[in-house]
Amino acid sequence: MKNTFNPWEVKGDIDYTKLVRDFGVSELKTLPDLFNKEILFRRKIVFAHRDLQRILDSIKNKKKFVMMTGLMPTGKFHLGHAVVAKQFLIYQKLGAKIYIAVADIEAYNARGQSLEESRKIALEEYITNYIALGLSPKNVEIYFQSDRSKDAKKSNAYYSLQNILARHGTFSEFKAVYGDINPGKMISSLLQASDMLHPQLPEFENFCPVVVPVGIDQDPHLRLARDLSKRIPIKFTQLSSTYHLMLPGLKGAKSKMSSSDPNSFIALTDNKKQVKNKINKYAFSGGQDTLEKHKKLGGNPDIDVSFQYLRMLLEEDDNKLKEIENSYRSGKLTTGELKKYTIDKLNTFLEKHQKEREKAKKKIKDFVHK
Amino acid sequence: MKNTFNPWEVKGDIDYTKLVRDFGVSELKTLPDLFNKEILFRRKIVFAHRDLQRILDSIKNKKKFVMMTGLMPTGKFHLGHAVVAKQFLIYQKLGAKIYIAVADIEAYNARGQSLEESRKIALEEYITNYIALGLSPKNVEIYFQSDRSKDAKKSNAYYSLQNILARHGTFSEFKAVYGDINPGKMISSLLQASDMLHPQLPEFENFCPVVVPVGIDQDPHLRLARDLSKRIPIKFTQLSSTYHLMLPGLKGAKSKMSSSDPNSFIALTDNKKQVKNKINKYAFSGGQDTLEKHKKLGGNPDIDVSFQYLRMLLEEDDNKLKEIENSYRSGKLTTGELKKYTIDKLNTFLEKHQKEREKAKKKIKDFVHK
Repeated sequence: MKNTFNPWEVKGDIDYTKLVRDFGVSELKTLPDLFNKEILFRRKIVFAHRDLQRILDSIKNKKKFVMMTGLMPTGKFHLGHAVVAKQFLIYQKLGAKIYIAVADIEAYNARGQSLEESRKIALEEYITNYIALGLSPKNVEIYFQSDRSKDAKKSNAYYSLQNILARHGTFSEFKAVYGDINPGKMISSLLQASDMLHPQLPEFENFCPVVVPVGIDQDPHLRLARDLSKRIPIKFTQLSSTYHLMLPGLKGAKSKMSSSDPNSFIALTDNKKQVKNKINKYAFSGGQDTLEKHKKLGGNPDIDVSFQYLRMLLEEDDNKLKEIENSYRSGKLTTGELKKYTIDKLNTFLEKHQKEREKAKKKIKDFVHK
Repeated sequence: MKNTFNPWEVKGDIDYTKLVRDFGVSELKTLPDLFNKEILFRRKIVFAHRDLQRILDSIKNKKKFVMMTGLMPTGKFHLGHAVVAKQFLIYQKLGAKIYIAVADIEAYNARGQSLEESRKIALEEYITNYIALGLSPKNVEIYFQSDRSKDAKKSNAYYSLQNILARHGTFSEFKAVYGDINPGKMISSLLQASDMLHPQLPEFENFCPVVVPVGIDQDPHLRLARDLSKRIPIKFTQLSSTYHLMLPGLKGAKSKMSSSDPNSFIALTDNKKQVKNKINKYAFSGGQDTLEKHKKLGGNPDIDVSFQYLRMLLEEDDNKLKEIENSYRSGKLTTGELKKYTIDKLNTFLEKHQKEREKAKKKIKDFVHK
């Protein structure tokens, strides 16, 4: 078996020495039980980290720490977003203070979306779904980049940090991290660095560990924030981060769920008919062309989108997952059967989730000021 | 007589067509009496403008308008700063709401000066002197770029405007305006654009005319803010601005007062001995090498720093000024006599001012929050 690593796939034995060399991230070693109850950690979907030890120490010693995440309020909330949400629910249970930034400034600067539209999407899609998935209002700060706080001291500190971070970066550095840049992207990346660092300011939680769980494709943002934080004359605990694989889009195991193409994702508001249709019609299959060939040669779960959804999100039972994998690989389980199983799992999850969503709508005011 | 125009000098008949072509600014035409009571306007030290008519209309119709200015809190407050201060005192009398931005973020990004140091200098030097010069606490907002307001709604609006302005500029535009740029300068120039534009946001004064009085060397900042304001989907009244000549530094009629060289300026805290020494020793003279030559050929007041201080700031009496000019040009008035007259004028002004400064120190709390 070939060793493979890309944002969607870790196959074979991972060469962590290479990963450290190429990406600067480290292997995710033995984690406390509470992490491993969550399949994302147990199955190494979250597979690497930087400086996570100080978060584990904080958990062990019951010391304050922050989990920080951001959301880009565009399009529908889909299964890919749930991969992040499930992680911050764990950190909340583990005692973290949760910071969630709605990147409405970035949506304006990078995509021209109005702040009003961003607010609407953030509340109706993202935050409603977070609450439905189990986010508790305890120890949570959800804020908009354009509207940091109703406490002026906090707002002034947050935006000033963005401004003074600028002195400590160079254009070539921004270019190296982002490829092509423009003033809007550059200022947004500085605001994102402030998003990650400002929880440690005295106006917020003060000097303390902060963990940022991201998809491996988001690592350049972490690197920039880490580098800037070392140069600024304010003392920060270096940021911790974890890296997860990307949940594949429907059209193939190496495609993304893209908000601009509804047939690339399952939204958490999709109905049963939509789910059935999308999985049957679009979900890329690892099966053979004909049933006869499939029975003889077997399917490939590694590239099968339905199987990956089971593995990364839907099938909690490790034994059941192993059974499905073996059965599919051997050819005993057909693509039709695998898809049907996935559709049922998805619809069971979504039916429950959508009921929770209705309740969640009434709770939004407990999470967001104004 | 040759026609001359540069930041320190308007000589001969000004070719305003050329000025409009080269700088995009217009002749300052007939002004209301209240302006002309002030020698800066009467003597065309403030010599050009953009879109001032809507400010004159606001004054005439008693409509709301804003006068916005910024200060870079580095070094001592000197005579050059008084040229700006005297203008905003007039606007205050004319009914303007006064906005004064302390550019502490810019001082950090451009010069590495800490926010604490900037705060100290701003309060002890600039704001104390403004109050001593006659600034009234009525209708004034003095704020720090790093600490916009104690009202979070205002702070959030001010910094968000900075952030979303970024989408509407290009790197080449920033470069064209500033020459060499870096991320710190770029973000500071966006904050400066927000300084000029944010008084018109609904959280502040709402849509209304704003005038920014600046030295002609500061026009690139105005141009950038004007251009950005036209592109952003928020409706702004186009900024008005006026342009004044630079008060020359001691060492010559085309040198600047530089905070890093105490012998280039008269500070408003200088004592009588310092003033006498600086004028006698350093003030560039338009007189001849020898008294004999001077009596015969006469002096040149146009390049004489002492005379320029009288003209631009110290000698209120037009007849007296004309008499001095003629007498110096004819050779009757010697350099020594001109300097002595200037020293006396300066020390009379500073003696009174320094008494006012002592009173002003107790009033700072009426002007700045926290």
